Amino acid sequence: RDPGAVAEARAHQDRLTKPRGALGVLEEVAVRLAGAAGVSPAPVPAPAALAIFAADHGVHAQGVSPWPQEVTQQMVGNFLAGGAVANAFATQIGATVTVVDVGVAADLPAAPGLTIRKVAHGTADLSLGPAMTVEQAVAALEAGIEVARELVERGARCLITGDMGIANTTASAALICAFTGQDAAGATGRGTGVDDDTLARKVEVVRRALRVNGLEGGPAVPAAGADGPDREGVVAAPAADGPDGGSEAVAAPGTGGPEASPALRALAAVGGLEHAAIAGFILGGAALRVPVILDGVISGSAALAAAALAPDVVDHCVAGHRSAEPGHALALAHLGLRPLVELELRLGEGTGGLLAHPLVCAAVRVMHEVATFDSAGVSEKEV
Amino acid sequence: RDPGAVAEARAHQDRLTKPRGALGVLEEVAVRLAGAAGVSPAPVPAPAALAIFAADHGVHAQGVSPWPQEVTQQMVGNFLAGGAVANAFATQIGATVTVVDVGVAADLPAAPGLTIRKVAHGTADLSLGPAMTVEQAVAALEAGIEVARELVERGARCLITGDMGIANTTASAALICAFTGQDAAGATGRGTGVDDDTLARKVEVVRRALRVNGLEGGPAVPAAGADGPDREGVVAAPAADGPDGGSEAVAAPGTGGPEASPALRALAAVGGLEHAAIAGFILGGAALRVPVILDGVISGSAALAAAALAPDVVDHCVAGHRSAEPGHALALAHLGLRPLVELELRLGEGTGGLLAHPLVCAAVRVMHEVATFDSAGVSEKEV
Repeated sequence: RDPGAVAEARAHQDRLTKPRGALGVLEEVAVRLAGAAGVSPAPVPAPAALAIFAADHGVHAQGVSPWPQEVTQQMVGNFLAGGAVANAFATQIGATVTVVDVGVAADLPAAPGLTIRKVAHGTADLSLGPAMTVEQAVAALEAGIEVARELVERGARCLITGDMGIANTTASAALICAFTGQDAAGATGRGTGVDDDTLARKVEVVRRALRVNGLEGGPAVPAAGADGPDREGVVAAPAADGPDGGSEAVAAPGTGGPEASPALRALAAVGGLEHAAIAGFILGGAALRVPVILDGVISGSAALAAAALAPDVVDHCVAGHRSAEPGHALALAHLGLRPLVELELRLGEGTGGLLAHPLVCAAVRVMHEVATFDSAGVSEKEV
Repeated sequence: RDPGAVAEARAHQDRLTKPRGALGVLEEVAVRLAGAAGVSPAPVPAPAALAIFAADHGVHAQGVSPWPQEVTQQMVGNFLAGGAVANAFATQIGATVTVVDVGVAADLPAAPGLTIRKVAHGTADLSLGPAMTVEQAVAALEAGIEVARELVERGARCLITGDMGIANTTASAALICAFTGQDAAGATGRGTGVDDDTLARKVEVVRRALRVNGLEGGPAVPAAGADGPDREGVVAAPAADGPDGGSEAVAAPGTGGPEASPALRALAAVGGLEHAAIAGFILGGAALRVPVILDGVISGSAALAAAALAPDVVDHCVAGHRSAEPGHALALAHLGLRPLVELELRLGEGTGGLLAHPLVCAAVRVMHEVATFDSAGVSEKEV
């Protein structure tokens, strides 16, 4: 975050032909993105690219979702055929859609628009032990970082996070508890729509996951940067393919030896492969100084992991929306991000992030195109 | 509002490849617009056209705004030069911008993008008596209706309301009190940013305006349609240029004889010329079955007048945003509209309506482009 660009952006806002502060939250978005870009005004964040990270979850076996697990695979097919809501919303804003298989249970045939970076055929059941090994979590992080780099290389100037994974709100709730210290009951919601009995079971599953994985009782993850990997290293080395990158966090094999940071161990223990990949996608976007619009609770919980690994990444994030899932508000509050769209969406796929993109563009566009009081010959307010 | 189209839209929503209700407020937007259009799905509401109705206010003399009155005229110049926030936001969504002089105090030279329909050189001071004669209010209504018709003839499939008029939040507050029965203190806000003393004066001015014009003590305007002009007549005859149109409400000259409806008399007494024109713009859009996205408190108070004249027009309206002005929330609640964007904007010009346009398009686009569970071969939720 460049304080000079922030100051310049604030001063520029106040010279524009509008009452000071009249654009409300959007003024702060423009200022934050200038700080993140290191230049005022920040570039207009277009075109945008949506990446939908798809994966399955061992915890599905606990009956936490009314949807069959194969819906993950079927929805990947729907995305590739252009038939999902995320496709319609992407068309609306001119965004590309890339589907990334980081852990779908079934083997998927190659297809245009599908990037196969499968780390595993779904996670293990997080209520019985770690969902992933640390190596798996790192592999998924790296996949996300690489997808970010590829999309930016192909011209994207804004990245939008998306997810598909039946049962992934359960993993999200567990991550939110682990990173914020919230109790399972406060962070767990109805996802795509479970009944009271299933919700009660889901809360119990999240609680058990935290206990089994040693993550209960307050935020198990210390303030980011305290003993995690060097944050500059992570942010500056998106490929993490050398000894200087984020890979230093993975010196120990298995479920996390002394060299794996608490953040990485928590992510591996109760996250999903798509959560880890989205965390990497955020790290990658931040390293390239491209804004990342976060979708809903899956992305929000992944962002907690990314921020724990490298706190500065939050400067590059915009909270696209706030979903109906209670844990999402907790995650955003922890990140210090205010959501732009609040329309009770609870779909995922990146839909909330896509909706926010024109708002973010409008906020930045003002800085490029609006006249100043001087240049337009408009009188200022009489003090 | 076509109940068949509403039912068909709801049923279609539930067949789409997403959990039921997962698009939250946007599902209701798509359903409402289908009902308004009389067909499901409703046409995607694009391209959009913004009309900024500009006028001045006699009440400016009471010291209710820190901005000099000539800023109205100067900002018209800024709009025409493309330098205002509304221009930047319009570019973002591909909307045209039309500025309509319905009552700017100064005489404006002809210019591309400027429609001159000046009814008066500003209103009279509403705190001393009626701001407009009923004839003036009707002339402004007709100007708004005609602008709507012209924009739709030129290809617009969505109309966005905009305003420019220094001191117009004072008139808006008075209209909101007149149409909802709210007390002046509850409906009056800081507009573009007045200090405590000015706010107190503004509240007193609004209170005096209601008293002087016989509009105090509860909603002076009865339920719309009770004794106003025949609503089908108003909605079906946007030009109001014959004996069958809305002009029947204007049989009496002056400030409102027995033939002028209470709604029209209230609009003339405490409204602005831009409020009356925006009310007409809404009536015109509704008559042509084109959705109208409402901007902030000026548009919201104008919509109260439009709805009092012809209640069905509300079906064609979408509340673009909720501004920081307290009266706006009251107006929207009275209209039964939920705003799409809530980002503490307090600028006017149509900026909040422009920001909402991509959200409205996205809501409708889903109905056209998203696959059903059957067509996509996606399994449904197990009950």
